[in-house]
Amino acid sequence: MSAPAAAPVPTWVFGASGVLAGELLRLLAGHPSLELAGAVSREAGVALRALHPHLPGDARTIAPEHATGAIARHIEASGGPAAVFLGLPHGESAPAWRALRAELGRRAGELVAVDLSADYRLRDADLHRAAYGAEPADPEGRADFVYGLPELGRESLRAARRAAAPGCFATALQLAAVPAAEAGLLDAGAPWVFHAVTGSSGSGARPSAQAHHPHRHGNLFAYALDGHRHEAELSQALAALGLAPRLAFVPHSGPFARGIHLTAALPLARRLATEEARAIYAGRFAGEAFVEVLAEGAPELRAVCGSNRAAIGLHARDGLLVVLVALDNLLKGGAGQALQCANLMLGLPEDAGLPVAGAGVC
Amino acid sequence: MSAPAAAPVPTWVFGASGVLAGELLRLLAGHPSLELAGAVSREAGVALRALHPHLPGDARTIAPEHATGAIARHIEASGGPAAVFLGLPHGESAPAWRALRAELGRRAGELVAVDLSADYRLRDADLHRAAYGAEPADPEGRADFVYGLPELGRESLRAARRAAAPGCFATALQLAAVPAAEAGLLDAGAPWVFHAVTGSSGSGARPSAQAHHPHRHGNLFAYALDGHRHEAELSQALAALGLAPRLAFVPHSGPFARGIHLTAALPLARRLATEEARAIYAGRFAGEAFVEVLAEGAPELRAVCGSNRAAIGLHARDGLLVVLVALDNLLKGGAGQALQCANLMLGLPEDAGLPVAGAGVC
Amino acid sequence: MSAPAAAPVPTWVFGASGVLAGELLRLLAGHPSLELAGAVSREAGVALRALHPHLPGDARTIAPEHATGAIARHIEASGGPAAVFLGLPHGESAPAWRALRAELGRRAGELVAVDLSADYRLRDADLHRAAYGAEPADPEGRADFVYGLPELGRESLRAARRAAAPGCFATALQLAAVPAAEAGLLDAGAPWVFHAVTGSSGSGARPSAQAHHPHRHGNLFAYALDGHRHEAELSQALAALGLAPRLAFVPHSGPFARGIHLTAALPLARRLATEEARAIYAGRFAGEAFVEVLAEGAPELRAVCGSNRAAIGLHARDGLLVVLVALDNLLKGGAGQALQCANLMLGLPEDAGLPVAGAGVC
Amino acid sequence: MSAPAAAPVPTWVFGASGVLAGELLRLLAGHPSLELAGAVSREAGVALRALHPHLPGDARTIAPEHATGAIARHIEASGGPAAVFLGLPHGESAPAWRALRAELGRRAGELVAVDLSADYRLRDADLHRAAYGAEPADPEGRADFVYGLPELGRESLRAARRAAAPGCFATALQLAAVPAAEAGLLDAGAPWVFHAVTGSSGSGARPSAQAHHPHRHGNLFAYALDGHRHEAELSQALAALGLAPRLAFVPHSGPFARGIHLTAALPLARRLATEEARAIYAGRFAGEAFVEVLAEGAPELRAVCGSNRAAIGLHARDGLLVVLVALDNLLKGGAGQALQCANLMLGLPEDAGLPVAGAGVC
Repeated sequence: MSAPAAAPVPTWVFGASGVLAGELLRLLAGHPSLELAGAVSREAGVALRALHPHLPGDARTIAPEHATGAIARHIEASGGPAAVFLGLPHGESAPAWRALRAELGRRAGELVAVDLSADYRLRDADLHRAAYGAEPADPEGRADFVYGLPELGRESLRAARRAAAPGCFATALQLAAVPAAEAGLLDAGAPWVFHAVTGSSGSGARPSAQAHHPHRHGNLFAYALDGHRHEAELSQALAALGLAPRLAFVPHSGPFARGIHLTAALPLARRLATEEARAIYAGRFAGEAFVEVLAEGAPELRAVCGSNRAAIGLHARDGLLVVLVALDNLLKGGAGQALQCANLMLGLPEDAGLPVAGAGVC
Repeated sequence: MSAPAAAPVPTWVFGASGVLAGELLRLLAGHPSLELAGAVSREAGVALRALHPHLPGDARTIAPEHATGAIARHIEASGGPAAVFLGLPHGESAPAWRALRAELGRRAGELVAVDLSADYRLRDADLHRAAYGAEPADPEGRADFVYGLPELGRESLRAARRAAAPGCFATALQLAAVPAAEAGLLDAGAPWVFHAVTGSSGSGARPSAQAHHPHRHGNLFAYALDGHRHEAELSQALAALGLAPRLAFVPHSGPFARGIHLTAALPLARRLATEEARAIYAGRFAGEAFVEVLAEGAPELRAVCGSNRAAIGLHARDGLLVVLVALDNLLKGGAGQALQCANLMLGLPEDAGLPVAGAGVC
Repeated sequence: MSAPAAAPVPTWVFGASGVLAGELLRLLAGHPSLELAGAVSREAGVALRALHPHLPGDARTIAPEHATGAIARHIEASGGPAAVFLGLPHGESAPAWRALRAELGRRAGELVAVDLSADYRLRDADLHRAAYGAEPADPEGRADFVYGLPELGRESLRAARRAAAPGCFATALQLAAVPAAEAGLLDAGAPWVFHAVTGSSGSGARPSAQAHHPHRHGNLFAYALDGHRHEAELSQALAALGLAPRLAFVPHSGPFARGIHLTAALPLARRLATEEARAIYAGRFAGEAFVEVLAEGAPELRAVCGSNRAAIGLHARDGLLVVLVALDNLLKGGAGQALQCANLMLGLPEDAGLPVAGAGVC
Repeated sequence: MSAPAAAPVPTWVFGASGVLAGELLRLLAGHPSLELAGAVSREAGVALRALHPHLPGDARTIAPEHATGAIARHIEASGGPAAVFLGLPHGESAPAWRALRAELGRRAGELVAVDLSADYRLRDADLHRAAYGAEPADPEGRADFVYGLPELGRESLRAARRAAAPGCFATALQLAAVPAAEAGLLDAGAPWVFHAVTGSSGSGARPSAQAHHPHRHGNLFAYALDGHRHEAELSQALAALGLAPRLAFVPHSGPFARGIHLTAALPLARRLATEEARAIYAGRFAGEAFVEVLAEGAPELRAVCGSNRAAIGLHARDGLLVVLVALDNLLKGGAGQALQCANLMLGLPEDAGLPVAGAGVC
């Protein structure tokens, strides 16, 4: 492991009671260069361990106004780098960022910020409206944010100070389909079918009917049959390639806490052998620390849970390319990828503080 | 299987949205002699399948006042038997029963009623106050209710028209300790230690922090360290034997939906071999359809889930009698036992409509 | 519930140590008209409860030769009906049946037999060879066996004495696709995509790497990427309709013990609204006790586990018909359906001994 | 995080196909000072990812004789430190160590070795015989090994070059009882009752009936009713304090993959308030990174899984001290603690490479 950077970068995590924020706090505890300066929540003074029992220690949440002042003072005093992660719900993140930006004025430029909500993911306002049934919350701020999927757009992230971390399903959908789409393998006239199963942490920290244990335990069921809003992020990525296929994505809830397993059945535009498909994906992701193309077989969920890694399996059959993607919704599909973006924007090693080996359970 | 009784006994289930009520509705669907006349809920007109998705069909809830009238009319018209199960929360059951009693007047005597709440379980008001922190809700009505654990008091149930179904843990605690206590095997001067693990359905139908899937999945934790109120039912049973040992019962939440596994470590008053212990328990429960004393080994939870059976394993060691009890909290520890009581009070075969073989999953 | 038939039908279950046989034994214990005469296993004298811990009681396995003699004597003596279930592995079932047939001679005709293996499922020897990589084990006996999916071929079952119970996935695949195919809704020129997740009981009673708990717990992974042999049963059903579409079926292993959830994405040959699709499926399965077409939403696995019911959800979208099927692999996908076939062949009520409400856990 | 040591310490892991070895390999991948030099297995040339799918990369196992030579050459050439972890089964570890020692001769002294088996845990040969039913495998080598529970014997570990890592249950048993025993709180004349539930990874990497998913899923059952051999390690620790109470430890198998939850009910020799008990344990473990005494409430399993932390909850009641311990059997109860020992023996920061925050799932 590499030596840590000189001075630690102070880091604030907004929305500290959320699931993704909890995961970020865990990652920050082991990060060589970032240092938690404040876990920010409207409910201030709460012990972090009460919110996230796997986090030991005595730290407590601080109020947003307290955090804003501290960020301003830090930048004033040091001029040095600082980082902010926005782990707030959709629609609350943009207002929080606007408030912070207003408070900091031009010093806001010194700040590296990653938003984990959907507020800055979609460039096209119509696409946002269609997916979220609401106006974009900060249209003028939108252009500052780079879409944060490093393996599909690393260079723009290196140059940026703001990133919009992708949705969990959206990460899997793009890793599954974009390489084949880029390579011209797919028939955009036939439907692209996606089936995914997600763990219960995707339902958030608050108890809900969908994540009630007697209901979720040993159960499996589809939802969002009319379409899931994470499809819009894939549509955006395909539009950039000039493609607009019909997407049929059926998400399912599964009986595990972490992880997403996606199975795509993509119509091929030409004959393709499994080996060739693997070679194309392996080439596309050559040298990547966090995307792995399997030389054989199928990925499994537990092999990636607890890691920032996405594992991809491929099989071509009867005119279809079957792509299997397994990732941890809280890491590569959430907090891990957000941290990967921050590392890139801060000029740190991209893999700093990010686990490659999984914990083996979901 | 025996032939069904002549005319079906109309049956009303109050508190139809609850977990135990859902299980009762399932059992009634397969009962040869009882027939669901109304699933009663303050929220009337709700499809049962929306409340309990494993129940197919189109039946809907009816309002309490609607049910009360129907019960009265049935008794008026037929004079024949009818049954009511009260699946309401503690403290709500007694008022509901008082209201029904008042409405029916002396015709109430024609009704067989089983209360699944704690409202009528404890005879001693002080014991009730200590366990539930509240006054008994219906002290004058209390005497009508027989404690409903058939294997430890069948004859009084046969003669009764009202039964208070035991608590889930309380059933396991008594099956574990009462036979040894009756046989004078135990030292009441040393503490009796009980450890139990329960499934999440014990937390009820409403989403809660305790039963939030990301929290409960793959987890185990103790609760109620100051004492669980189900201990009071064991104290009551032991008091009837003239015993008042210190009880140390530590309940735990486990990552399954159904079932309770109890491990008791009971101080022996004399030397005792495992074989002798098994013989005593086997003798005590000889001929019982729903309590099984294992000839060897330990019971397992999944072998009883879905059945109305409690399985008991025994091991004597170093001055302690280790008793292991596995049962389904929703059946032998809840709705199944309540139905067993109703069968007895109605003069039906005790096992009517009650599964002996388990579904093999919890 | 209906009154039981006059004299119980003696019933033998071969391959008693298997998972499906265990489930049959459980169902038989509650059947009003069938009575277990022998649980048959090459390893004779083993307590059933040691093989299937959820089955209480003292019954033990008997040897095949012992069973054969008993069957012959019963038929000789009574001339009355008798039933045999073959719960043996693929390739072992046909030889066992041939031996039994040879032993009984023309009296074999008195016997109702259901085979739960794949040995008699496929009429076309080439299809069998392609799916199982082996010659059909009893080609001349094949014609006696009717394919045992009652909802798609009840009349031929009523007239038969031999049935081949479908595979677990095969049941789900056919319930999903056949109604739409029959109605001419589907485009046989585009691929029909199926994605299914199965519980670990599908891996059988013997410990295996695929079903090792530390591996399977909280995990999800695809397998059989080259094609699963249960596809052949759907191909057979579609061939009878004159259809031969490309089938892309990807099975997955999920972290529950029972149940299969299937998601089909079927290419539509014409515009179709979700409501119309529901009406077509509801009409196709009108009056069925064990197939339920949901009026809205998606089926869930735990609602059918422990029941013999398959629940079907439908959604039409963008040229695709999404069909969701949930069933218990051990019941509607296995032992339950086998018993349903036996009921039909014996002239008993089709639903005798078969649960409609689920146990709520998988 | 602290700066890494100058040159990485080459490290060999024997028994690489085992569960604990897999966890060690995962920890070594993130360790700042230790570097995997060889994953050693009798079956050489196997990809580590085939053995432990959560470990990405292309490394393969090497043969023991190959490793022995490499260790010898390294020590010869550098004279510098090296580390060996023995992750072999009981009874295989001592012979492997004897062979390695013989090969290296007096250069063996340069090597830091941690044995994860039971071969060197018990100093008393009689105790070993009673617990393992076999002679100690290397009686003369026994004295070199220090018992490896740092929080209860750190100084001897600092001075040692060989450590015997404790058993998983044994770690929990000692953390629960030793502080109270040391403080003279407990009555050694009454039985000390322990109840623990363990995850399925404790059953090892090979499929087994005990860990077959359809059996283990949603299940709970006791085993080793005659006594579990890990009790001997607690007896050894108590003997050092001059205590020999009767121990009643009942282990249970639970439906999760990782983790142990222990509940002890210990007889108090004097009156004690919960607060006082907490103060005594908190004092005993003050400053420890990996043992945490909760100021209130009960520990939960998922809060420690994925971390090297043990969490302890305390409650005094009616003459009993209830102690609750949660730890990850693969980390604080296995590979993590072994690495903690190696860090100490090598003079590295004790917490190097060891996670304090958990992954939140078991």
